[in-house]
Amino acid sequence: MKKNMRIGLIVDEMTSNPCRLYELKYFCEKYDIAKSSLSEDIRLVNQILSENGTGRIESYTGVGGGVRFVPGISREETARLQECIIEKLSDPQRILGGGFIYTSDIMFDGRLLRDMARVFAREFYSRNADYVVTIETKGIPLAAKTAELLNLPLVVIRREAKYSEGSTVSINYFSGSYDRIQKMSIAKRSVRPGTRAIIIDDFMRGGGSLKGITEILGEFDVEVVGIGTALAAREPVNKKVSDTVNLITIDSVDEEIKSIHMTANDL
Amino acid sequence: MKKNMRIGLIVDEMTSNPCRLYELKYFCEKYDIAKSSLSEDIRLVNQILSENGTGRIESYTGVGGGVRFVPGISREETARLQECIIEKLSDPQRILGGGFIYTSDIMFDGRLLRDMARVFAREFYSRNADYVVTIETKGIPLAAKTAELLNLPLVVIRREAKYSEGSTVSINYFSGSYDRIQKMSIAKRSVRPGTRAIIIDDFMRGGGSLKGITEILGEFDVEVVGIGTALAAREPVNKKVSDTVNLITIDSVDEEIKSIHMTANDL
Repeated sequence: MKKNMRIGLIVDEMTSNPCRLYELKYFCEKYDIAKSSLSEDIRLVNQILSENGTGRIESYTGVGGGVRFVPGISREETARLQECIIEKLSDPQRILGGGFIYTSDIMFDGRLLRDMARVFAREFYSRNADYVVTIETKGIPLAAKTAELLNLPLVVIRREAKYSEGSTVSINYFSGSYDRIQKMSIAKRSVRPGTRAIIIDDFMRGGGSLKGITEILGEFDVEVVGIGTALAAREPVNKKVSDTVNLITIDSVDEEIKSIHMTANDL
Repeated sequence: MKKNMRIGLIVDEMTSNPCRLYELKYFCEKYDIAKSSLSEDIRLVNQILSENGTGRIESYTGVGGGVRFVPGISREETARLQECIIEKLSDPQRILGGGFIYTSDIMFDGRLLRDMARVFAREFYSRNADYVVTIETKGIPLAAKTAELLNLPLVVIRREAKYSEGSTVSINYFSGSYDRIQKMSIAKRSVRPGTRAIIIDDFMRGGGSLKGITEILGEFDVEVVGIGTALAAREPVNKKVSDTVNLITIDSVDEEIKSIHMTANDL
């Protein structure tokens, strides 16, 4: 087989399986090549992925070693993504009143989702999480894409306990966005105790539901090691959770003059 | 730039952007090569993607022509996927009573989702849909992945009208699974009239909610041109919708002897 072809096959296979560890032996046997040739190929694959800004290949030596594609996104591409979302959100027709903005089309757009998830993958890869957790509904595609890129299972917390979830644990929490007590529920069999989770959601106002998720995971001894949201409101300044990664901050929504002020956060 | 590198860059870019049409000019200018060299490259890229079973490159000539990566999955890989899901579902601990089975971990597993979505992309690519539509909650990741592969926007129908969706249209429908009247609601601005949609969901029993989705889309003059579900119950035999693509049929759940009978459908 020609080297041209082999490089393409490896790029396709590794990028289709983000964060999956491949033993070098796997590719050596598949393509009947020496380890030295494969190492050269992997260097080229790494160069290709960094040239395109798709991510990088991490290599691990010794027992259990191998290579892994780690997705990423450059600062420049992140800035372009933020600019694109801000431009879309600036449409005054999105203003619904009460500080609410219509965002579903953005949260359900495959290309924006992919790029937002690449930012979270880059930021949270080294946190060694076991799960990506979200709460229904609008953040599910973003959390699912982040989970795919980090090769982690997704866990979806429900508003109401469903029979099809088996035994569940529920908590009540205060939601500032809706100014009322809300409920959330998690399937007992969806997480193992003593593990680590990243929370991904579409939007944060006061951080009430994110704090609720942290608490419900705490019931299972699951530690939250990262929180990411696509959008975050500037107010209230004192959030119920800290150290969150937010792509865009919504500074203010002026319903009178139909304008939305936003800031792209430095990522 | 070496041909090795160029092939890898094109594979990476095209597979990262499924169903996106690239003008040949785009790659010719980006890599400063003649159209004849690019045509040769594209042939090799197509060979790579078919060798890995990832999909194929479609070429279009004339004005508005170019190349497009169309995701797919071989019959053999589809059979392996079905076998893998059936094996997972066979665990008697999944039986919850009342014919319900715990499936969330399967519906939230990145690799299974990707492969299930590849089947739907292969089956529905030629239907020329404008949207992928689902109803919250458990089918959202599968629908989102299918939408990504077909380069279509996702539309999520809600159980309750949400303020953040703007104006909505709601209908009531009869759910056989829950043996009661249920409600569904769609944001008016989420679909344009006169368009075509594919519906993707995790599970179908009698087809009540799928028929409900068809009706609510009909209110907007949106035609349903395909329905796909991961799992479908054998009973009732007379479904409320027809011509559905179901990966696996659940023939019976025996709660006494804790066993689940399933069939992998021919896909």
